[in-house]
Amino acid sequence: MHNQLGNFLSLNTFGESHGLAYGGIITNFPAGIEVDLDAVQKELDRRKPGQSAIVTQRKESDTVKFLSGIFEGKTTGTPIGFIIENENQKSKDYDHLAVAYRPSHADFTYDQKFGHRDHRGGGKSSARETINWVAAGALAKNILPKEVEIHAYVSSVGNIFCEKPYQDLDFSKTESNEIRCPDENVAKKMIDRIKEIKKEGNTIGGTITCVIKNLPVGIGEPVFGKLQAELAKAMLNINAAKGFEYGSGFCGAAMTGKEHNDLFNTDFSTKTNLSGGIQGGISNGMDIYFRVAFKPVATILRPQESVDKLGNKVTVEGKGRHDPCVLPRAVPVVENLTAFVLADLFLINQIRRR
Amino acid sequence: MHNQLGNFLSLNTFGESHGLAYGGIITNFPAGIEVDLDAVQKELDRRKPGQSAIVTQRKESDTVKFLSGIFEGKTTGTPIGFIIENENQKSKDYDHLAVAYRPSHADFTYDQKFGHRDHRGGGKSSARETINWVAAGALAKNILPKEVEIHAYVSSVGNIFCEKPYQDLDFSKTESNEIRCPDENVAKKMIDRIKEIKKEGNTIGGTITCVIKNLPVGIGEPVFGKLQAELAKAMLNINAAKGFEYGSGFCGAAMTGKEHNDLFNTDFSTKTNLSGGIQGGISNGMDIYFRVAFKPVATILRPQESVDKLGNKVTVEGKGRHDPCVLPRAVPVVENLTAFVLADLFLINQIRRR
Amino acid sequence: MHNQLGNFLSLNTFGESHGLAYGGIITNFPAGIEVDLDAVQKELDRRKPGQSAIVTQRKESDTVKFLSGIFEGKTTGTPIGFIIENENQKSKDYDHLAVAYRPSHADFTYDQKFGHRDHRGGGKSSARETINWVAAGALAKNILPKEVEIHAYVSSVGNIFCEKPYQDLDFSKTESNEIRCPDENVAKKMIDRIKEIKKEGNTIGGTITCVIKNLPVGIGEPVFGKLQAELAKAMLNINAAKGFEYGSGFCGAAMTGKEHNDLFNTDFSTKTNLSGGIQGGISNGMDIYFRVAFKPVATILRPQESVDKLGNKVTVEGKGRHDPCVLPRAVPVVENLTAFVLADLFLINQIRRR
Amino acid sequence: MHNQLGNFLSLNTFGESHGLAYGGIITNFPAGIEVDLDAVQKELDRRKPGQSAIVTQRKESDTVKFLSGIFEGKTTGTPIGFIIENENQKSKDYDHLAVAYRPSHADFTYDQKFGHRDHRGGGKSSARETINWVAAGALAKNILPKEVEIHAYVSSVGNIFCEKPYQDLDFSKTESNEIRCPDENVAKKMIDRIKEIKKEGNTIGGTITCVIKNLPVGIGEPVFGKLQAELAKAMLNINAAKGFEYGSGFCGAAMTGKEHNDLFNTDFSTKTNLSGGIQGGISNGMDIYFRVAFKPVATILRPQESVDKLGNKVTVEGKGRHDPCVLPRAVPVVENLTAFVLADLFLINQIRRR
Repeated sequence: MHNQLGNFLSLNTFGESHGLAYGGIITNFPAGIEVDLDAVQKELDRRKPGQSAIVTQRKESDTVKFLSGIFEGKTTGTPIGFIIENENQKSKDYDHLAVAYRPSHADFTYDQKFGHRDHRGGGKSSARETINWVAAGALAKNILPKEVEIHAYVSSVGNIFCEKPYQDLDFSKTESNEIRCPDENVAKKMIDRIKEIKKEGNTIGGTITCVIKNLPVGIGEPVFGKLQAELAKAMLNINAAKGFEYGSGFCGAAMTGKEHNDLFNTDFSTKTNLSGGIQGGISNGMDIYFRVAFKPVATILRPQESVDKLGNKVTVEGKGRHDPCVLPRAVPVVENLTAFVLADLFLINQIRRR
Repeated sequence: MHNQLGNFLSLNTFGESHGLAYGGIITNFPAGIEVDLDAVQKELDRRKPGQSAIVTQRKESDTVKFLSGIFEGKTTGTPIGFIIENENQKSKDYDHLAVAYRPSHADFTYDQKFGHRDHRGGGKSSARETINWVAAGALAKNILPKEVEIHAYVSSVGNIFCEKPYQDLDFSKTESNEIRCPDENVAKKMIDRIKEIKKEGNTIGGTITCVIKNLPVGIGEPVFGKLQAELAKAMLNINAAKGFEYGSGFCGAAMTGKEHNDLFNTDFSTKTNLSGGIQGGISNGMDIYFRVAFKPVATILRPQESVDKLGNKVTVEGKGRHDPCVLPRAVPVVENLTAFVLADLFLINQIRRR
Repeated sequence: MHNQLGNFLSLNTFGESHGLAYGGIITNFPAGIEVDLDAVQKELDRRKPGQSAIVTQRKESDTVKFLSGIFEGKTTGTPIGFIIENENQKSKDYDHLAVAYRPSHADFTYDQKFGHRDHRGGGKSSARETINWVAAGALAKNILPKEVEIHAYVSSVGNIFCEKPYQDLDFSKTESNEIRCPDENVAKKMIDRIKEIKKEGNTIGGTITCVIKNLPVGIGEPVFGKLQAELAKAMLNINAAKGFEYGSGFCGAAMTGKEHNDLFNTDFSTKTNLSGGIQGGISNGMDIYFRVAFKPVATILRPQESVDKLGNKVTVEGKGRHDPCVLPRAVPVVENLTAFVLADLFLINQIRRR
Repeated sequence: MHNQLGNFLSLNTFGESHGLAYGGIITNFPAGIEVDLDAVQKELDRRKPGQSAIVTQRKESDTVKFLSGIFEGKTTGTPIGFIIENENQKSKDYDHLAVAYRPSHADFTYDQKFGHRDHRGGGKSSARETINWVAAGALAKNILPKEVEIHAYVSSVGNIFCEKPYQDLDFSKTESNEIRCPDENVAKKMIDRIKEIKKEGNTIGGTITCVIKNLPVGIGEPVFGKLQAELAKAMLNINAAKGFEYGSGFCGAAMTGKEHNDLFNTDFSTKTNLSGGIQGGISNGMDIYFRVAFKPVATILRPQESVDKLGNKVTVEGKGRHDPCVLPRAVPVVENLTAFVLADLFLINQIRRR
């Protein structure tokens, strides 16, 4: 279903950047699960604007309020409604753009599709929507077995790459720096690069890598529900995402079968893991890892030529508080979206076999 | 819904490699649409085994039979059922693998998930499932406006890349060679490489690029129905797919906003198209293009170490008729799957606005 | 999908009687439709407790707040989120029932299914959920052509029946009395009966008839989407509903084909309308009419024997503010739920034919 | 989703009365369940035409062929495809109706909705579609615990009622007579009445009662998935169904709360069962029982006035082989459709609680 994430455990959302609130409804969350609501808020805080010098300075408290489905710290089995109120919608910052189409934004396509667009800002196309996904995903994490770990981190900013394989990284350090890269030397270079870019009123893209550990064998559905396809769909719905690869990914396309095949150990683990922990769309017990590409933020604080709704030439120039790089704030989005996808497939797997 | 492609126009499928038949049901196909059933069969013929020296020599007629929903050359508006019978399931070729888990196949994960696997071959995990998608997609193409063009081609095999931008290619030449690359010089190199690889009993991966022309503006849904996300989901469900990128893709992640933004012309086309024809999840009228990575086929005709169901060491060796490279046969899969995704979103868009 | 009303136009809801709020998300509402939010609130006011002497005296303002998807009086095409806050959850009234299972309530089944129940009151099983449906249905009415009319009224209370055929009733009088029966003589008898019953601390059931006029021909889907089936499903989800019949209904089961067939006039209207305006699951342009049976409210203000969670015998006695008869408040529920079902099928029908 | 039965366990179908075949796909059937395919065929045989003097004399073998998802007598967990070929589509019998709209048939509504209708007969509107539901339901029955019993029987034909409460009937006798009423005296009267009616070229309606025994507590979902609503939806999709009631049904609407409430025993069974085994949409462990009203078959073998597509007056007269009364053949439809609905809700319930 459109506008729905998940197939059994499902999330429907609403909200626009300049409306009253964001929110969502989670359906089919099993009853009797203890949920840590502070942990949910903590994930929202990780995504929140204004955390550091390299993200937008907008201030929003981004406080989630759960309205149903949770009673005395446990889920009740009924739909979980939540809202996150918008506090700081400075629409003045956008007024000068009222009629111009901003380059590489969704102004033109929304206008064409729906016959109008919200001139106060991104409206429905704003990445603020991801706040819903973080809230729902952080809650859904409680469905997964405790030992499942999901670690996302910034693996490149522009041309600066975290070249160490994920196995050599200490994920406990991801939160220790502003860019959320666990290799602190690389992190420093990334942060410097973003500061530079910001000074120019420019923006920059990058990639996020996500690693899933200890997922049970058997998660994912054979056709039109493959684990990698559900992850790809979720990731490509993130606003600036341009690509997804898992396991060997695009590099694997250059390899031969002999090089690429993962041979089994006698305990059914594999000697290599170019498969990225998935065979036939189903988890095989090895680490799952994937990478998501993010384009640079389209709003730059420099004049750009554009056109207005009538096709007249105009100049647009981003003002106000924008992210020079979405990556650090996208890390909790990737992690929690992943948690939601896994929780959905995990529940479905429970009734696939007698 | 799992096991379903599409949200309004939808496809449910069934079938296993060694069962009696494949088939599917297409729901919500509008009434009164003229459908060219010969064109559908032609697409199946493009995907069929045994077409050339660089694909498997299995013989299947792969004849689709439509059982309902079409009357006197037009759709009736009721569900369209179809089947494609299996003719040539030489299960003997697989007998020696009855208990072994083939490396980088789904034998182990199916066994774990479902408590059994089809020792006669891939069963449900076989890529023969894509036959259903080709049939359904080729039919769904009739829903799209006539001017919409979908062109897929092999853009790399191993380390041999078709380096010309798609704009410089003549798509009418894609079918003129066995590998389905419209640059004939590159095609020749690709074919030679595959023949080499085949001689070694090895296999090789590669990428397919797909270009969509003349899609109307407005196709795609804002949240959890973004055009790129629906395409990514469809593509990552193809059996050997490892990655998806659209527009600037992973390269875009290394760019700055100033470089990456697509400035508008006064007719609302854009001067560049790093966006890949999609803004905010919605088509903007420019060409849409994306790339899919395919791993090398896991079945190689050489001995490999493996384990059996009990964890005993065994040696497996592919026998029989296998593809050294799935790419040429995957081209019609990518094209027709794309057609289905577009037709679904096209119909939905028709009721999005008064 | 469970917990979802509608197939294309869809409603997901949340809320419990003693939680913070009710609310919902409406997906796929077309863009650019003028919506009368005062009319929506007016429908909620019709359903509100405390309107007259024959309904519960609980006070709730039941004010709906739309949080997204509507801008400057028109829909934007994006999901419409709304909430209705709970104001007056006097849970003390229920404390004495904390461990007892109330007869013919859902206490026992919820406890068994979910492992707990909300001892503060009905929780998710409360009919207060219908507030969401009224809000969503009243909004969805704006999708239907202006000439479509939906008239529900109380057609029986206990053994007092409104015996006139609906064609002889003046629907403008439905709102003129407390019971919402357009035949004022019958209405008076019904009201007297309810007052009597109330004095005894008892409750009473009845039926609601609903008539749809001017629905275009063609609404409804052939299989698993028949208009009558979608209506039946919606109606049987109303908390106290026990039965549904349309057209000739259960009486039709006693007739012969010769008596029952509706012969055509030359303008394709029919001479009789035992079919109830639906043939093959699809509207035929004649009036659609159906009847819904409601059981008496289970909470009576008299002592009843029951058991507690441990199987011990206990006496329960309803206290506080309860409806002696749900029918007058159910009239707007039936009407607006019908509007939602029709709007969904109306949209789907728009893409069923070229 | 339209054209789909069930929410998790789901059935999509295709087929028209004069097409090549009927069939369907069942999704999410758990793996490893032993299925009795002979029992499935037996249910189809019960529904088959030509079984006795009081049903149509059309001959169809109605043989179901399972094409996937079942291997060595057990389900594999992958989609189950099946077809039932049409053998005996004597379309000549219908030729004289090519342009006339038959009274109380779907000819007019299909023509209006889809822009055409199948002049060879009912096409998609034919009740032959129910053959798919019997096949799928009979298979789904294997998902339910062995002790669950589903007994449907004809409880009235015209004005002849089986007045004994179901508790006093011996369901083992249902199959012992042509009308499928377990009270043999009543059955005899019903059969005589149908024979009389048939002689006149007329048809007659009636009701079917269905009783479910030993269903576990907890089946059904609180909102938009209530057990009674799912049953009502399924039943009202049967072609001639005009009404549905469960438990006390329409009679319950005339009662008071004091009379209607079911008091608990200390083992949580209830002293009475006017609730019909369902509280809050969820099974409570008591017998579930419901009644479905069926109109008389619209095709009568007597001349009737009608109109053709152009609005000209014509006379139509049913010829060929038609049922004077659908009830005996509808009994297995009701039973197996019920089994499917229960199996779907049973599976969903398995993941509702930790």
